[in-house]
Amino acid sequence: MINKLIEKIRKTNAPIVVGLDPMLNYIPEHIKEKAFQEYGETLEGAAEAVWQYNKGIVDAVYDLIPAVKPQIAMYEQFGIPGLQAYKKTIDYCKEKDLVVIGDIKRGDIGSTSAAYAVGHLGKVQVGSRKWAGFDEDFATVNPYLGSDGVKPFIEVCKEENKGLFILVKTSNPSSGEFQDRIIEGRPLYEWVGEKVAQWGEEHMGKEYSYIGAVVGATYPEMGKILRKIMPKTFILVPGYGAQGGKGADLVHFFNEDGLGAIVNSSRGIIAAYKQEAYASFGELNYADASRKAVEDMIADISGALENR
Amino acid sequence: MINKLIEKIRKTNAPIVVGLDPMLNYIPEHIKEKAFQEYGETLEGAAEAVWQYNKGIVDAVYDLIPAVKPQIAMYEQFGIPGLQAYKKTIDYCKEKDLVVIGDIKRGDIGSTSAAYAVGHLGKVQVGSRKWAGFDEDFATVNPYLGSDGVKPFIEVCKEENKGLFILVKTSNPSSGEFQDRIIEGRPLYEWVGEKVAQWGEEHMGKEYSYIGAVVGATYPEMGKILRKIMPKTFILVPGYGAQGGKGADLVHFFNEDGLGAIVNSSRGIIAAYKQEAYASFGELNYADASRKAVEDMIADISGALENR
Repeated sequence: MINKLIEKIRKTNAPIVVGLDPMLNYIPEHIKEKAFQEYGETLEGAAEAVWQYNKGIVDAVYDLIPAVKPQIAMYEQFGIPGLQAYKKTIDYCKEKDLVVIGDIKRGDIGSTSAAYAVGHLGKVQVGSRKWAGFDEDFATVNPYLGSDGVKPFIEVCKEENKGLFILVKTSNPSSGEFQDRIIEGRPLYEWVGEKVAQWGEEHMGKEYSYIGAVVGATYPEMGKILRKIMPKTFILVPGYGAQGGKGADLVHFFNEDGLGAIVNSSRGIIAAYKQEAYASFGELNYADASRKAVEDMIADISGALENR
Repeated sequence: MINKLIEKIRKTNAPIVVGLDPMLNYIPEHIKEKAFQEYGETLEGAAEAVWQYNKGIVDAVYDLIPAVKPQIAMYEQFGIPGLQAYKKTIDYCKEKDLVVIGDIKRGDIGSTSAAYAVGHLGKVQVGSRKWAGFDEDFATVNPYLGSDGVKPFIEVCKEENKGLFILVKTSNPSSGEFQDRIIEGRPLYEWVGEKVAQWGEEHMGKEYSYIGAVVGATYPEMGKILRKIMPKTFILVPGYGAQGGKGADLVHFFNEDGLGAIVNSSRGIIAAYKQEAYASFGELNYADASRKAVEDMIADISGALENR
């Protein structure tokens, strides 16, 4: 799946991923009205609005991008109907041949991580049959529990040719509280990055490992160091746009080959119509605004990579 | 909710929690057969078997215990139908007046943690109405992202009188890989424990904080130190029984008042009938075996507390 991701990045010339993180207040009124008319102001109504909103965006941008990253929390907030919309979104994006990164940030003790891995990336045995629960292509994983919390995910990835992005340095303001603490002269995130590189050796693709890392766009200097610590690791870079990262800040997340990173934008793309720069599209044409925002993001990042 | 938990611990004289972590291979054949006859060897069939199995155990033990802790991964592995069984289990346990600790180990950047918090502990706004998605009483949270990943959970807990258990030192063998690393002379888990105590001050119950900690039974010496660092923090202690912890090892997790900790056992209770000690109950009477295992666990822990 890392090979497919790289192939699609080359084909689209777009090392980006669109974060499908729908909040109800991003969703245009006409979509909400229709969904609430059909299902009421219920969890089912919210889930229907989320799904229709996502579908509009995916239809408008799928030919420009290699991958999407639905954030499961934004669906889980609507309980079971929300998770049904998450699953529907995954299936639809896969139909459109997009690589799907499930931003689930799971991680637990061994047997429990195995259950998460099976549910999201693998197939669970039921009697004589096997079934996929969610079936994302990649999943994000939290490393706080150490190797035996991560290895069950790697085992399933090997069986299924799927991949992970493991949290190393997150994009949020207080990520440094624990991640930046100094251990034997180096911050914790470097130690985690080293582990990710080691874990990655267990499941290599053609050029890069199936086991990637998450490093926030908001910390470009740390990205530069982590890039060197993890040379064969693909880095998923959240925090572009709404969280403050810009194309020029991101060049050091990439290797000389122009690969090695994929930059996520969520709100900046899916709620583009709410920004001044794209307001002229109007709420009804929110998906066209998203398409233009994707084009601008690709130009920003490709431009920065060409000018480095 | 921490007050209710303490009241129920006093009433049952049982500082324990039963982990409802169903694996298909724990479930008696007669339950699986019936579920598969009705729904086939499908995710729905597995979810039905899980639910019937849980119901049997809850019916057999609810009067002896204050709380249950369903591990969401064991349901998530069966996709949407599995999560429906998770929700059904929560609702049923609440009907039986049990405190429900959702072992979800979520944690993300601020806006995303807010969505998880709303979905599991709070209510989500849909138009003019509000709905609870999963509605557990407590949730477990991963601290790797720092304060701004934890605070949105605390905010929702304040609104709803609910609580958290934040991972400090986990029970698994490789938990030390990052958690034990030394920062300014002290292990990371102590720094996390100190933060948990601080966060806890923001949402105090009568005797203890609504914001608790997770410390594995498998590390009793660390538990002793963490007990002192977090005097007003309730500690959820996994790892009893199947993972190796014993009652005598656990006394230092408790304060002098006999409170301050709640010990979890999962497999040791729910799959008791598979152990030699309870094999005479037979598979058909698995729930009676679970009841006996609960009684034995209470005696082991109460005995250890009385003899300290």
